[in-house]
Amino acid sequence: MAANYNQEPKRAANLTVNEIRPFNAEPPVSVLREHFVTPTDQFYIRNHAPVPVIDSRNHLVSVTGLIPLELNLTVNQLENDFPQVTIMATLMCAGNRRTEMSMFKKVRGVPWGNAALSNAIWRGPKLRDILLAAGVDKLEPMWDSLHVEFEGVDICKENKGYGSSIPMSKAMDPRGDTVLALQMNGHVLPRDHGYPVRVVVPGYIGARSVKWLKHIRVLRHESNNYFQVKDYKIFPPHVDWDIVDNWWDKSPPIQELSVQAAICQPGDGEAITPGSKYTIKGYALTGGGRRITRVDVSLNGGKTWEVARLFSDLHNQKTGSHNTKWSWEFWEMPVMSMPSPCTIFCRAWDDSSNTMPEDLRHIWNLRGVMNNSWVKVKVLAKSKV
Amino acid sequence: MAANYNQEPKRAANLTVNEIRPFNAEPPVSVLREHFVTPTDQFYIRNHAPVPVIDSRNHLVSVTGLIPLELNLTVNQLENDFPQVTIMATLMCAGNRRTEMSMFKKVRGVPWGNAALSNAIWRGPKLRDILLAAGVDKLEPMWDSLHVEFEGVDICKENKGYGSSIPMSKAMDPRGDTVLALQMNGHVLPRDHGYPVRVVVPGYIGARSVKWLKHIRVLRHESNNYFQVKDYKIFPPHVDWDIVDNWWDKSPPIQELSVQAAICQPGDGEAITPGSKYTIKGYALTGGGRRITRVDVSLNGGKTWEVARLFSDLHNQKTGSHNTKWSWEFWEMPVMSMPSPCTIFCRAWDDSSNTMPEDLRHIWNLRGVMNNSWVKVKVLAKSKV
Ligand SMILES: [Mo]
Ligand SMILES: [Mo]
Repeated sequence: MAANYNQEPKRAANLTVNEIRPFNAEPPVSVLREHFVTPTDQFYIRNHAPVPVIDSRNHLVSVTGLIPLELNLTVNQLENDFPQVTIMATLMCAGNRRTEMSMFKKVRGVPWGNAALSNAIWRGPKLRDILLAAGVDKLEPMWDSLHVEFEGVDICKENKGYGSSIPMSKAMDPRGDTVLALQMNGHVLPRDHGYPVRVVVPGYIGARSVKWLKHIRVLRHESNNYFQVKDYKIFPPHVDWDIVDNWWDKSPPIQELSVQAAICQPGDGEAITPGSKYTIKGYALTGGGRRITRVDVSLNGGKTWEVARLFSDLHNQKTGSHNTKWSWEFWEMPVMSMPSPCTIFCRAWDDSSNTMPEDLRHIWNLRGVMNNSWVKVKVLAKSKV
Repeated sequence: MAANYNQEPKRAANLTVNEIRPFNAEPPVSVLREHFVTPTDQFYIRNHAPVPVIDSRNHLVSVTGLIPLELNLTVNQLENDFPQVTIMATLMCAGNRRTEMSMFKKVRGVPWGNAALSNAIWRGPKLRDILLAAGVDKLEPMWDSLHVEFEGVDICKENKGYGSSIPMSKAMDPRGDTVLALQMNGHVLPRDHGYPVRVVVPGYIGARSVKWLKHIRVLRHESNNYFQVKDYKIFPPHVDWDIVDNWWDKSPPIQELSVQAAICQPGDGEAITPGSKYTIKGYALTGGGRRITRVDVSLNGGKTWEVARLFSDLHNQKTGSHNTKWSWEFWEMPVMSMPSPCTIFCRAWDDSSNTMPEDLRHIWNLRGVMNNSWVKVKVLAKSKV
């Protein structure tokens, strides 16, 4: 059956469309930086197929595999038969900053800028509670060797729904916060973001947060879905399309996010009056519930670094009960006198003492994933009129 | 009271002594690489004071602070009143590879080479079970904001026992595996390693695995012990001794390990016959129970990389029931024809897609901690005789 793109939802006009079919788009990075919780219509959209048309009254989520009790849950049951939790979490596409990587040497994939991530408030039952209802407590001694597979309604590669898996230990971690989201920012999920139910796996690449969720399977092995085994993997820099087939099996799928950052203001190539006051602004994030501990900014090519101001404390207050464990960090660096023209560098650190690699040449990979090399933004000198 | 070094234990003769009083020593890195489980007498020794003389029959470990029930536990009780668990875990000093950092620009601290880490099998009760016996389950809603402080018998800075703290969430994580070790490699703990009881916090810097454990305290805040607040912190490169006092408070203590590696064979400056067969060998490790996914080796200054062979599967088999979650990884790279003279680079990656920073100048810090820059070993050409 040919893919049918006649029933796509309406989208905000200001998004940068990186691919039309399937639809892939990101907001302007300066707009992204204006809201700690991304407005729903500005949330980046990453689709692998046409957006499914689903009647939520007939939609069932099945829970099968190595579990004592198979379940078929309606959306109503997901909402009413399980405690509902609310978490704030940033999702980021593994291809964020891919275009930058492609400029050094061509990669294949959706050409994302640096805004393929967004932060939202998600509400729904915990995956943990669903799996407990299916009797997984009886399998507890095996948890460390099991995987939970998700499959969506959207038919993609190999004529199967988009799919992925995560380790059972993540699914069952009481502090892991994997949810089956029915709501996003206080409203029913929009169609582009998985209506009526999507998985949200906080701290993992967005690819694991399967939308339009249809099947949950407990397996002894990782999912063998295309998107777990033939995509979303980092190869060494020498692997090209001629030899890649030797590398899929021996490369692990990307799961937890690495430490990442971007400069949202100024934009690359922006002109600023030399000597003027200016505030550099950006985001940073990291995986696994770790915390951004420091963002360094350099105005002289890494010769010296200054430490940016972080906002998580502020945002913890502003967003009330939502803690920022799974969210990005916003940062800013006031400069009294801009030395334009110049190149601004930035790099973030997390609470595992990990930081970003300097040179994208050394982390270049064929699929253009997980580009977390130092951020470099060129600033031109604006002539005084 | 002046420190008394008259009752230090006997140590292996082949250790490199980096400081005599207090005693700090590491094994030859080539010896380290010979045993996946480090022989006890080759385990690196990191002391902050004279080794305490303790009669285990009189030794008590107190559990106090924000807990419903205070405990005073004898070593006998620690062994007989709680389930005993056995874990394999690598401990690494945050100062590992400090000397290399000091060669670029002087730092202060024990001058460690690249062998300030070792892997052992630890046995004792779980910290989690001790804390449950003290009633911490009643505090569960607060766990995310609590800390567990450890203090040893060894009197160090400020006339207090060496101390540290970890987050309550790590202490209580059923898969966090923090233990109060009574045994190391199947025998009673040696005096140098904390006889009769030490904490082992797997996945964290060695500094948190407090030896000669005397006090456990549940607190609302991190420990204010000198070694939590005035040591074991990473500063930005510009921070020197003139301004460091402004930086202690705003820098978080190092806790989880970052991704790290070393080349154990050949040694730096070793001569190898050009064109000969050679096997490069090393270790890698990372924090938080994460897994080393890849080790890259370059024989041409990073122009191209090859992927080393990893051994965790093998070691999982060899060490039987001990899984390698908290252990280092051993790797090797066979070279058919050594291009000596050359410089060998290596870098490791973990399953959060984090890797090691290229240039130590950019991560240089005043205390010389967490040097995980690319490993660089110079190989000379051995002339054929
Ligand atoms: Mo993605
Ligand atoms: Mo240490």
